[in-house]
Amino acid sequence: MAYHLLERDRDGGRTLGQRLGLAMEAIGHCSRCRDFSEAGMCPICASSARDGHLLCVVESPADRLAIEQATGYRGLYFVLQGRLSPLDGIGPRELGLDRLVARLAEGRVQELIIATNPTVEGEATAHYLAQIARQHKVRPSRIAHGVPLGGELEYIDRGTLSHAFGSRSEVPD
Amino acid sequence: MAYHLLERDRDGGRTLGQRLGLAMEAIGHCSRCRDFSEAGMCPICASSARDGHLLCVVESPADRLAIEQATGYRGLYFVLQGRLSPLDGIGPRELGLDRLVARLAEGRVQELIIATNPTVEGEATAHYLAQIARQHKVRPSRIAHGVPLGGELEYIDRGTLSHAFGSRSEVPD
Repeated sequence: MAYHLLERDRDGGRTLGQRLGLAMEAIGHCSRCRDFSEAGMCPICASSARDGHLLCVVESPADRLAIEQATGYRGLYFVLQGRLSPLDGIGPRELGLDRLVARLAEGRVQELIIATNPTVEGEATAHYLAQIARQHKVRPSRIAHGVPLGGELEYIDRGTLSHAFGSRSEVPD
Repeated sequence: MAYHLLERDRDGGRTLGQRLGLAMEAIGHCSRCRDFSEAGMCPICASSARDGHLLCVVESPADRLAIEQATGYRGLYFVLQGRLSPLDGIGPRELGLDRLVARLAEGRVQELIIATNPTVEGEATAHYLAQIARQHKVRPSRIAHGVPLGGELEYIDRGTLSHAFGSRSEVPD
């Protein structure tokens, strides 16, 4: 990309540089959900069309975007901007969990949808979040893990297959 | 492989040919589960250590092997050797479902674990199997589908993410 700009589009390169600089200054974090936002509160948190009883916790802004694009979810989000990782010095404070606790204490949230990644650190974070939720009488739920749609059992890793088998559920009528 | 045998290992090639021929003659289907078997009944069906209350339906012998290796499942299997696919002329008869029905009618099976692949045809087959199970007062269950372990939400396909979000479940204490 750098070569392309230097060889053919120096004006574009200058513009890109300015815009990047502006973005670095202008884009901060939403005071409610910690997602990136130009305003003090992001459009989703500010929207009155969203269901405040549901709060979905994700690790990164990209995860929020993926859920927003893939599902019809109409609730709100809380973006951790990371996951619990004591070895890297990332604890509850770095993830803004004090703000999440304050939010749950408001009493409006009824279900905390924990959508952290199913990695080791993501699972540890999910466990911690579920505890916090229960302390505030909020129902914690976890997104489903198992065989991805369109996947074939034969090619799935053992861990996922074992988990999918263990968390089988009764087929509803 | 053919070049390797022709260039360097003609004896090996002859042996392989004979063995293949023998296998084609000797290996048939288990009379209980329809899996490949040299004997009339495969070792799993013949084993008394297996739990006859659980019956897991899979599409292919490779799927059975994957489950057997990945999970601690101690029940029995039924191998469809395919999936419902009317356009290819594969209906209930081709999948040996009459034999499955007879098996359920024996009254020993309590849970039918449907482990067909989460593809369109696999889901249609699962739906059909669940109906059969209910007709025989057997509880049908389905293995879990969702985000694979170790996966990251950001890179999951939309269908899977949407399904995982929709089938979220309450975190147990």
